[in-house]
Amino acid sequence: MDVPPPACLKSPPNIPHKLLLGPGPSNAAEDVLQAMTSPLLGHLHPEFLKIMDEVKEGIQYVFQTKNKLTFAISGTGHAGMECALVNLLEPGDRLLVVDIGFWANRATDMAERCGATVQRVTEPPGKAVDAATLEKAIESYRPHVVFVVQGESSTGVCQPLEKFGSICHKHGALLVVDTVASLGGAEFYADRLEVDCVYSATQKCLNAPPSLAPISFSERALEKIKKRTKKVQSYYLDAELLGNYWGCFDEPRRYHHTGMISSVYALRAALARLAAEGLDEAVQKHKRNVQLLYIGLDDIGVSPFVQDEKLRLPCLTTVAVPEGIDAKQVCDTLMSQGIEVAGGLGPTVGKLWRIGTFGMNSNEANIKRVVAAMKAALADQKHHI
Amino acid sequence: MDVPPPACLKSPPNIPHKLLLGPGPSNAAEDVLQAMTSPLLGHLHPEFLKIMDEVKEGIQYVFQTKNKLTFAISGTGHAGMECALVNLLEPGDRLLVVDIGFWANRATDMAERCGATVQRVTEPPGKAVDAATLEKAIESYRPHVVFVVQGESSTGVCQPLEKFGSICHKHGALLVVDTVASLGGAEFYADRLEVDCVYSATQKCLNAPPSLAPISFSERALEKIKKRTKKVQSYYLDAELLGNYWGCFDEPRRYHHTGMISSVYALRAALARLAAEGLDEAVQKHKRNVQLLYIGLDDIGVSPFVQDEKLRLPCLTTVAVPEGIDAKQVCDTLMSQGIEVAGGLGPTVGKLWRIGTFGMNSNEANIKRVVAAMKAALADQKHHI
Repeated sequence: MDVPPPACLKSPPNIPHKLLLGPGPSNAAEDVLQAMTSPLLGHLHPEFLKIMDEVKEGIQYVFQTKNKLTFAISGTGHAGMECALVNLLEPGDRLLVVDIGFWANRATDMAERCGATVQRVTEPPGKAVDAATLEKAIESYRPHVVFVVQGESSTGVCQPLEKFGSICHKHGALLVVDTVASLGGAEFYADRLEVDCVYSATQKCLNAPPSLAPISFSERALEKIKKRTKKVQSYYLDAELLGNYWGCFDEPRRYHHTGMISSVYALRAALARLAAEGLDEAVQKHKRNVQLLYIGLDDIGVSPFVQDEKLRLPCLTTVAVPEGIDAKQVCDTLMSQGIEVAGGLGPTVGKLWRIGTFGMNSNEANIKRVVAAMKAALADQKHHI
Repeated sequence: MDVPPPACLKSPPNIPHKLLLGPGPSNAAEDVLQAMTSPLLGHLHPEFLKIMDEVKEGIQYVFQTKNKLTFAISGTGHAGMECALVNLLEPGDRLLVVDIGFWANRATDMAERCGATVQRVTEPPGKAVDAATLEKAIESYRPHVVFVVQGESSTGVCQPLEKFGSICHKHGALLVVDTVASLGGAEFYADRLEVDCVYSATQKCLNAPPSLAPISFSERALEKIKKRTKKVQSYYLDAELLGNYWGCFDEPRRYHHTGMISSVYALRAALARLAAEGLDEAVQKHKRNVQLLYIGLDDIGVSPFVQDEKLRLPCLTTVAVPEGIDAKQVCDTLMSQGIEVAGGLGPTVGKLWRIGTFGMNSNEANIKRVVAAMKAALADQKHHI
């Protein structure tokens, strides 16, 4: 052997239990983790194809869509974003990015790697873009595709989407919506909103491990894909090939890649949990519980970063860091107690804390615990000033 | 709700236990599955970064490399192939594909999506390309990159790689090796063989669920990546960004994507198993046990498809279908007994069976069971002719 077996693999890993109240991953549900211990099946065995079909139905439910081209990508939320963009953009296409935070940069980076040109319509952190502003930007830029994030996790804004779909379609553009941080925690109706492509991830409100990216394309989006003059630049993320493997078309399934068997089991369990709770009830639960968080924050003298309450994401709350407080030190103090709360991201670094209450983590006990821990950490800092 | 909760998610999934002796996924080890039930950590928590470091060391061990740019892609083996090609090819580059079966098509498809031009050096199914033939093809085509599959799972050939690296380097080409179906089941020494990029998958000899693609790039490969004139077309598979997240360079880690926490736990457990067994011993075990399979096959009157025993993959055996036998019916009969054996793939459909004995599935009991089942299925068919 040129390279000896590593000594570090002789001992078990150190995996402490933490309460994950950052922007994700959230904690995974016990039955979702247990689902992954089921024996593996082959990626084209009929029993596994049936599970894929069931997962597909579950994804249609959480997206509220009847789109036939609905499946889960064998990759995380970022793979979902890349799948949306590589399939819907051809070199030279124009993409309009609704820029209300960090995720606009990611989408821009990916779109430019597709050879698209990108313009943005921007609002400052904590604000959202309104429909009239969007329409003006579309009229001036004439994009092929419009990209918007519903749950902007860097600012805690829940971007309203009413009329976005119809405005895009009036001007011949497709609408892509990122629901990674919002799905299951804020209202979303893909078909009603006329969304052409929506994707999400598994590690937020679904309380599953990060692994798959549920995605769905409208008929209008599929039409554009079919009319492409150039192959999709990624084989792994080619929506038509993936749609075939996921049985979305009336044709025999072909081997595209080896599906992530155990992760699909986990996603099925997570979707079953959400379906049993009910999507409406899940969203209402987040809205009810986040009110408790607002009250708790108010009690300890801090305020939500997003001033307009209607624009706040019910499953991820951003909190303005008071003057003179070291934001990172508060996070470190909480982490030492096994509670994760995160700082800002991109444009909001140092300006805010991010408290995620995703899915099963949205409950009174967690909220009381994190508020009490923050209260103590803040008092401790003030005491030392 | 426009779309009601799916009724199919109300009952538990049907997941029968099967002995997976096809070309993969193989069965997963129980402790590897159990590792996935550990609580989630954040993708940038120090405890998780330590686990990533340990996984990285384990991957360096199984690849037998000291390459610093070594990590696991959050995607399956196909994502590994795509990562290798999108990072090492720029538009207009020439790729030479060693074509000894199905995988040459996949690599060609992906490379063309990168804007590269592809030529092949081909041998018929069951054969391998020798070093002199490769050198002649390189001299005539002058490729920037040479792609070769070590374990050609469509034919059962283990492609010899001696001198491939030095020949490539003599002519200024980089060498990419796919070890998806061979790693842990056939000798492989990345550094000794002068391999510039090697990738694999988790669901074969590692006995983990399909989810991650271990990958490693040499200094020479990294140099080419650094000199690219155009960004890598995939953000998700950008090796330099991934290398940063995996702590491969002396720089602070940045958030690239949300790592597949539970899958990384599983991979760590799988690598720990292999390190405890020892890579040499693992390979020798496959070689010893496959001899039992050859004897068993001979006893029931069928023969390996690959005639030159030195070219046979020790972990995946292809068997020629005797004249007059319905290959698919034999597979169906075995599957009805809970044993998976596969038919051909691509150029070998209908011509052979594929029997995978990957990792822990390489043992005398499994081999006896599959041989006995094939014997009965063949006798049954002959009886009905």
